[in-house]
Amino acid sequence: MSQAPSLDTGVQQRLTALMAPIAGDLLIVDRRLRAELQNDDPFVHELAQHSFRMSGKRLRPALLLLAARAVGDVNESHHTLAAVVEMIHTATLVHDDVLDEAEVRRHVATVNARWSNQTSVLLGDYLFTHAFYLASTLETTFGCRTIGRATNIVCEGELRQTASSGDFWLSRDDYFAIVEAKTAELCACACLLGAHYAGADAALAAELESYGRELGVAFQIADDLLDLEGDEQAAGKSLGTDLVNRKMTLPLITLRDRLDDAQRARLHGLFEEPTAESQAALVDWLLASGALQEARSEAASIAAGAVARLDALPASPSKIALAALGQFVVKREA
Amino acid sequence: MSQAPSLDTGVQQRLTALMAPIAGDLLIVDRRLRAELQNDDPFVHELAQHSFRMSGKRLRPALLLLAARAVGDVNESHHTLAAVVEMIHTATLVHDDVLDEAEVRRHVATVNARWSNQTSVLLGDYLFTHAFYLASTLETTFGCRTIGRATNIVCEGELRQTASSGDFWLSRDDYFAIVEAKTAELCACACLLGAHYAGADAALAAELESYGRELGVAFQIADDLLDLEGDEQAAGKSLGTDLVNRKMTLPLITLRDRLDDAQRARLHGLFEEPTAESQAALVDWLLASGALQEARSEAASIAAGAVARLDALPASPSKIALAALGQFVVKREA
Repeated sequence: MSQAPSLDTGVQQRLTALMAPIAGDLLIVDRRLRAELQNDDPFVHELAQHSFRMSGKRLRPALLLLAARAVGDVNESHHTLAAVVEMIHTATLVHDDVLDEAEVRRHVATVNARWSNQTSVLLGDYLFTHAFYLASTLETTFGCRTIGRATNIVCEGELRQTASSGDFWLSRDDYFAIVEAKTAELCACACLLGAHYAGADAALAAELESYGRELGVAFQIADDLLDLEGDEQAAGKSLGTDLVNRKMTLPLITLRDRLDDAQRARLHGLFEEPTAESQAALVDWLLASGALQEARSEAASIAAGAVARLDALPASPSKIALAALGQFVVKREA
Repeated sequence: MSQAPSLDTGVQQRLTALMAPIAGDLLIVDRRLRAELQNDDPFVHELAQHSFRMSGKRLRPALLLLAARAVGDVNESHHTLAAVVEMIHTATLVHDDVLDEAEVRRHVATVNARWSNQTSVLLGDYLFTHAFYLASTLETTFGCRTIGRATNIVCEGELRQTASSGDFWLSRDDYFAIVEAKTAELCACACLLGAHYAGADAALAAELESYGRELGVAFQIADDLLDLEGDEQAAGKSLGTDLVNRKMTLPLITLRDRLDDAQRARLHGLFEEPTAESQAALVDWLLASGALQEARSEAASIAAGAVARLDALPASPSKIALAALGQFVVKREA
């Protein structure tokens, strides 16, 4: 975290405060990540270390560790698995940047921009396989199985998203199914692993898994909103990529479904024509119609549902932090 | 295998004859692969099934199953792991085709040519993660750990190869280190898993692992030769890609290291200029100098070393098949 650049200091500070109950654990996880990605080959070493300057918030390790502490004790398996989920998340980011042709992430040049798409593909594979190896160093296959299944669902979600690219008629149900798979599944998996390896019974672990899934959905909706109306400086990454890639997101779906045929045809036209002007017109329309604000309150309500899952937990600083994350994910600017 | 197209029938027939001791097992593995890659989403389903029309020889599952039968009995773990290694191999092929910008493999359009690079990246990830999930359904973590480590080494080798692209001065040692990692490691891993899960002791499993590694190196050298002088029709894939991508392979290294400075500068010039004419001139030079033939006999001698490892095994049809594979991999035309 010490290498995180300065522009999103505000966000970082709020997150750091939330993470107080697991601050020591996060340091262990960061050291673990750096140690695991040492490599004798200087090129491989540089790439692997670079990838960790791009990932930043450590949201998934934090979820895993907070879920563990909210249930019981954090042990070495948690540190290993927290490193695993962050490594997998980073792998998907590296591959996403190939797909989105993004040039900057977390104020750092993406691998595809600095090296090449080929290097990005291989670096992502390297991180994926290293993460799986690391998961397999635990005593039982539970970790591998949970991680393997979750990442497979993530990839399936990304494939479905690719297939739906440019599809103005994407249904709300399909939008949510894609978001649940590509983003929320790994958050759900992190919470499940944290709870399970802290000794939670199946029912409590399932509640925390659902918390993670709903939090992940809220997070992704907020991320889509950020891409539409955010500030590149604050976000530290290229924005507006969804419209360029003609990706339907919740506010667009919300607006589309309430228009009459003539207006919908106009919206479709703007969607099909990814110029800077048509994109600006789209964002204006989304704001003026209230569709953007509506999507934001839908995210907030999903996050509130996630937080309600925490009722089953005894009072603890980690429970408070998990609840606060429910607020944080929908109010962030980066 | 029944869907394999007809042009490489000769190769397929010779391989089928070799595989007689494990023919039934290979059918089970193929059924398993097809079943595992069923998907409710029609796009994901089509992609996954398509990828198995591109992979073809089933060399890695065959190594795993033959190593098992040469040692003891084949059990369900072997069928699972054979499907796993083939799925991982297919994932690397799908990603390789992005890297090489290849358009045809096994007479079938590559995923990147038929859909897009983005789809290829995600499909490869989908296959990787599915393979890891499948490995985690075994009782112990040995399979996951062995597969995780091997695939990580494969990716590291591919990264090192990317870094060395265009490097006319790549040393013989670095060439062999890259080939051992990117190609031979998965063959070694397949043999180790086959032997281990059939109850081989550590020493015998290690011998079979070395057999697999050396066979894999010989196989890759032969593959590089095929890329230089093969027939696209027979091979069923785009050839000449190594020269286009300015990749140093064994015959080029062999030729380079025996030239005087002036000749070497001329070779360097041809290598740097990837036109059809300079490539044809390079191949002519490799043939006339005997460097190509020398690389071929180096591959044969490495394969012979691999076969000598089999001395530790009791006589069996599977042992004979493993020995015959040592001949096959260096004499193939596809």
